[in-house]
Amino acid sequence: MSDAKPQHLMPVTQEFCAHIAKLTPGDLPAKALHEGRRGVLDWLGCALAGVHHPTLDHLIGVLQEVGGRAQATVFARSLRLGLLEAPLANGLAAHVLDFDDTHMGGVVLHTSSPVLAALFALAERRPVGGAAFLLAYAAGFEAGVRTGQTAPGHYKGGWHLTGTLGSVAAAVAGGKLLDLDAPRLTHAMGIGATQAAGMQQNRGTMCKSLHAGRAASNGVLAALLAERGFDSSSEIIEGRRGYCRIYSDVAKPEALLDELGTRWEITRNGHKPYACGVVLHPVIDAVIALRTKYSIDPATVEAIELRGHPMLLSTTGVAEPTTGLQSKFSVYHSAAVAMIDGAARIPQYRDQRALDPAVIALRRKVVVTTDDSLGKDQAEAVVVIRGARHRVFIQHATGTCDNPMSDEAIEAKFMDNAQPVIGADRAGKVRDLVWGLDRVGDVRELVALLA
Amino acid sequence: MSDAKPQHLMPVTQEFCAHIAKLTPGDLPAKALHEGRRGVLDWLGCALAGVHHPTLDHLIGVLQEVGGRAQATVFARSLRLGLLEAPLANGLAAHVLDFDDTHMGGVVLHTSSPVLAALFALAERRPVGGAAFLLAYAAGFEAGVRTGQTAPGHYKGGWHLTGTLGSVAAAVAGGKLLDLDAPRLTHAMGIGATQAAGMQQNRGTMCKSLHAGRAASNGVLAALLAERGFDSSSEIIEGRRGYCRIYSDVAKPEALLDELGTRWEITRNGHKPYACGVVLHPVIDAVIALRTKYSIDPATVEAIELRGHPMLLSTTGVAEPTTGLQSKFSVYHSAAVAMIDGAARIPQYRDQRALDPAVIALRRKVVVTTDDSLGKDQAEAVVVIRGARHRVFIQHATGTCDNPMSDEAIEAKFMDNAQPVIGADRAGKVRDLVWGLDRVGDVRELVALLA
Repeated sequence: MSDAKPQHLMPVTQEFCAHIAKLTPGDLPAKALHEGRRGVLDWLGCALAGVHHPTLDHLIGVLQEVGGRAQATVFARSLRLGLLEAPLANGLAAHVLDFDDTHMGGVVLHTSSPVLAALFALAERRPVGGAAFLLAYAAGFEAGVRTGQTAPGHYKGGWHLTGTLGSVAAAVAGGKLLDLDAPRLTHAMGIGATQAAGMQQNRGTMCKSLHAGRAASNGVLAALLAERGFDSSSEIIEGRRGYCRIYSDVAKPEALLDELGTRWEITRNGHKPYACGVVLHPVIDAVIALRTKYSIDPATVEAIELRGHPMLLSTTGVAEPTTGLQSKFSVYHSAAVAMIDGAARIPQYRDQRALDPAVIALRRKVVVTTDDSLGKDQAEAVVVIRGARHRVFIQHATGTCDNPMSDEAIEAKFMDNAQPVIGADRAGKVRDLVWGLDRVGDVRELVALLA
Repeated sequence: MSDAKPQHLMPVTQEFCAHIAKLTPGDLPAKALHEGRRGVLDWLGCALAGVHHPTLDHLIGVLQEVGGRAQATVFARSLRLGLLEAPLANGLAAHVLDFDDTHMGGVVLHTSSPVLAALFALAERRPVGGAAFLLAYAAGFEAGVRTGQTAPGHYKGGWHLTGTLGSVAAAVAGGKLLDLDAPRLTHAMGIGATQAAGMQQNRGTMCKSLHAGRAASNGVLAALLAERGFDSSSEIIEGRRGYCRIYSDVAKPEALLDELGTRWEITRNGHKPYACGVVLHPVIDAVIALRTKYSIDPATVEAIELRGHPMLLSTTGVAEPTTGLQSKFSVYHSAAVAMIDGAARIPQYRDQRALDPAVIALRRKVVVTTDDSLGKDQAEAVVVIRGARHRVFIQHATGTCDNPMSDEAIEAKFMDNAQPVIGADRAGKVRDLVWGLDRVGDVRELVALLA
């Protein structure tokens, strides 16, 4: 009891954690299991692709200075750090390119970066099988996404959900990996939630990816503390001053339990073909489709007119980005590079592309209209060339729930990301291990390939 | 630029940090300097008194497992940990008894626990003089309290300000101790703010004091990252999705600069004579005054009728506490122990007192009425004995800004807290050093006495 107890409230946090605590790997449906494998593979590629980003260098400089025990692997850096530190680094690396998976089921959450950065560290603490690992991963999705659903005003309130919900998700995932009983898992969730932070104000800065690392590290701390008997409120979601009330102007605590056990949130995960904010993806699909269909010479483009979900401007409306990180939140930049390169992957969001005169000239010809009736995965693009107007409409962006990337596309993206960092041979071994992860006896076998 | 920039907004964050970055020890007025000495002395006593609390044992268990470099002293534990870890432990220890200083200038903030836990760790990184240390401490007050003033709905929104504002305060204090220039200090403030968390839902649990430790550690990370060039939004307070908007339903960004340089927030700090939530203090003053004035035998008390600020019930309304931590937020428990023992210090808030039948019997005779017209430092108590009613009204609780504890009382409290932990001899040396702290050449001289 943290306060005069609101007796009428359903104890959803405790019920949720009791459910999660009881789950065994056999409870995971085949589709959830497979989404787990896809998620791990895609995420590892993003984490490896991010390891040489200057944002990570700053963090690693600090972490090497304070250096905990050599307990957990920092990917592709020949470095091991303490259990609270490696997740900071790996979580940041995996999110810094904004290329990691995105769950859009009512929330926009990059679940895997906080969750997997936490789980990979904890998997080096004691031997953990792949099946238990994938179950904990799925548990993290349940915790993070459902907590978001209890707080529908959360995103609009200005929070960066990967930091906030990520902290809850990583704590529950970590607690599940440690096999905590229901009361301790409830405390882990509470300790994770009470550290939840991250402001959208920091979009386009180095802090955005720090949020993912911070959330991962918060989750590990929460799980380790709860394991030792550290407590928290048992009503951290529904309480009068709990998560769904203070992080959101609308509270729906009961959403935590809605279809729990039948609807698995990991099955609604999305994967990114483009290395930028997910609301830009239908626009990029549309511009690339136009470019291909009409064999457009970018120099001849008079205007690009876009119509899409209001988040196109509220979230990705940066008009004149001056850094790569900012350009990932610029609909103008994204449409321009998609038209010039026919692509929107890592090279298109480097610092120098934000300053490229050809990109700047074209991005100034991009006009954006928002339309409440469109979904976040929908967009229309019209290109104007010598007065002629060519139009494409995207019903569901590539990689979203209703138009998922194929296993082959996920695999190709992984190889593309991983190969330059760990080489084709090791990347291939990682790929093979991850596709059979539920049969791996000790996840450290996989970690050894990532060092 | 993190977003389409709201051009009409005053860049208060940058102006604030430019001001703080320029300050030198000579700018600190004598009163602020002296409040700094008082604050350090009182805080060290609280930190030492907290070192044997079981809450800290759980945390230290985890920190020893992950153990960073032996860089910073964990007080009175014969233990040194990494720069991100020692502040977690010392911040928690100093806040766990709820005995640490409280700033009530528009916010209720235990500033010193996050700020000093951060500063004491950083003072072991490179030699720092006492005058620079006290200036950084005062800078932390400016940052934490003023950020709170930009967000007037913050407390009511359910946040535990020692976690949230503490993270901002510790980051700016830490950045000032590292002598960051204005742009880097602005980033430190941003990195600190974007980690700011802590829910009032966790009042009465172990998480409440974890918030203070977490904030301290967040601040150290923020300062160290900013020093290496890690960036954040430069409008973290005033931005459209910045602190004063997302942590509060009312935004007053201009408050960050109000009388900056003339009003020093550290001079409005308060110190606690009682080891519990500060809104209970006028009630305890009143009950002790009644007990003394009328030589009351607690067994004869028929009722204790209290009238006070609405926070008496909203913050400290726990009717049936079952642990020491919960009893620190129970007006009923506090009035009962004050009547029985004539005191409300550490022994009165141990677990066994919450379960003591005499306390339970008396706390059930306590009736509380709230009164909007009363200040947080005011209360009336009426004791009913054999039908007779005796009344006392407290105008300003002991230890608050308008009725401060004397230097002698602060010193006595420190000795009382420190002596059982480090012995009278060492405690005396600490006391003498702190009263002359601005003339100490290297703060490690003080730290050595705290190991």
